[in-house]
Amino acid sequence: MTDQRPIAVVLVSGGMDSCVTTAIAGIDHQVALMHAQYGQRSRQKERWAFDAIADHYGVDERRRLVIDLGHIADIGGSALTDATMAVPLANLSSTDIPITYVPFRNGNLLSAATSWAEVLSASAIFVGAVEADSSGYPDCRREFFDAYQAAISQGTRPETRISIETPLIEMTKKEIVLKGVEMGAPLELTWSCYQDEPTPCGICDSCVLRARGFRAAGVQDPLANLSER
Amino acid sequence: MTDQRPIAVVLVSGGMDSCVTTAIAGIDHQVALMHAQYGQRSRQKERWAFDAIADHYGVDERRRLVIDLGHIADIGGSALTDATMAVPLANLSSTDIPITYVPFRNGNLLSAATSWAEVLSASAIFVGAVEADSSGYPDCRREFFDAYQAAISQGTRPETRISIETPLIEMTKKEIVLKGVEMGAPLELTWSCYQDEPTPCGICDSCVLRARGFRAAGVQDPLANLSER
Repeated sequence: MTDQRPIAVVLVSGGMDSCVTTAIAGIDHQVALMHAQYGQRSRQKERWAFDAIADHYGVDERRRLVIDLGHIADIGGSALTDATMAVPLANLSSTDIPITYVPFRNGNLLSAATSWAEVLSASAIFVGAVEADSSGYPDCRREFFDAYQAAISQGTRPETRISIETPLIEMTKKEIVLKGVEMGAPLELTWSCYQDEPTPCGICDSCVLRARGFRAAGVQDPLANLSER
Repeated sequence: MTDQRPIAVVLVSGGMDSCVTTAIAGIDHQVALMHAQYGQRSRQKERWAFDAIADHYGVDERRRLVIDLGHIADIGGSALTDATMAVPLANLSSTDIPITYVPFRNGNLLSAATSWAEVLSASAIFVGAVEADSSGYPDCRREFFDAYQAAISQGTRPETRISIETPLIEMTKKEIVLKGVEMGAPLELTWSCYQDEPTPCGICDSCVLRARGFRAAGVQDPLANLSER
């Protein structure tokens, strides 16, 4: 029998949050997974994680899209894409926007996802953004996604109806870990670290947020004793 | 003396509208010109036109950005990027959205322009979109640009202030020709045709709109007697 459920495009970086988001989107949707390479340091690790997650969920090749947003690296302005800027040690108490912010990255991801969603007649774009327990990037806030959804509504065909779903936006990292475990999401396949080393650096914002989440959840991170993948 | 005027990013396809928009933006701004290749049939002609327009206005290499949005062609859904779909004969009386519509193309262009504008501390993005005298693409309407500007405001640093300027949006093609002539814009360097032939096809929507504009303005199109460029 053909799957009659609506299609959802899911943005999958390959990190824990997008993995859990894929699991959630898959409850009521056929998922179409999109991954972006934009010159980020950890692009190779993220690409492997994307493929592994897509394999885990049995996603057909036609429902996988890897896009190249190389202009984001050309434009620069972020420690994640500029090899001459160091990734800072975690500093989660700061209220400044960290230099790992990639200018309007999520706007670029959403525009590509919208083009694909419109062609697929998808009803939703799922994004694993987290607002509360995060690094404070402006393009990870629900206000941004609401505004972007309004722009999509104005800028696509009248019959196109795309909602932006952010199921994790108000969750803590602890809650995300617990949700992932509950849903059997393959957290062992994910990659969170901003660096591109054989093992997670353990000291960037993203590693520290992840570790804090697992610790608070009382769950062992399957990557914690990782040797080369 | 250093140019103290604010910076504006201008989207330059290489067509007549973006050429005139560049002229207008340059009155009160230092211009930074962005061009996108997205698998459109006329990409080579458009790229030449972009370079020629940038040269004409003496724009420094650091203020030129050519981006590759190859995913738009991968996603497909448009006769402009899919070689298996024919570009239709002009049909400007239809109220349907034509199959030359590239799903959410302007959303993709604006997101890249926003990333660059934020890094340049630009105050504006200029787009040569035309609503009235156009093919009826949903992402060429002022409502869309207003909604997108609101999304930019939410999704960038608090100190980033970017307005989307669409100086041609309510103009007819006739008025655009007259404005271009008045400002000395190099219309002879532009390319409008959707096809990729040595000379404009003369029968696609874009050629017909252009011809109608020149005719109504009583101006000879410098491309009218074009042999191979």
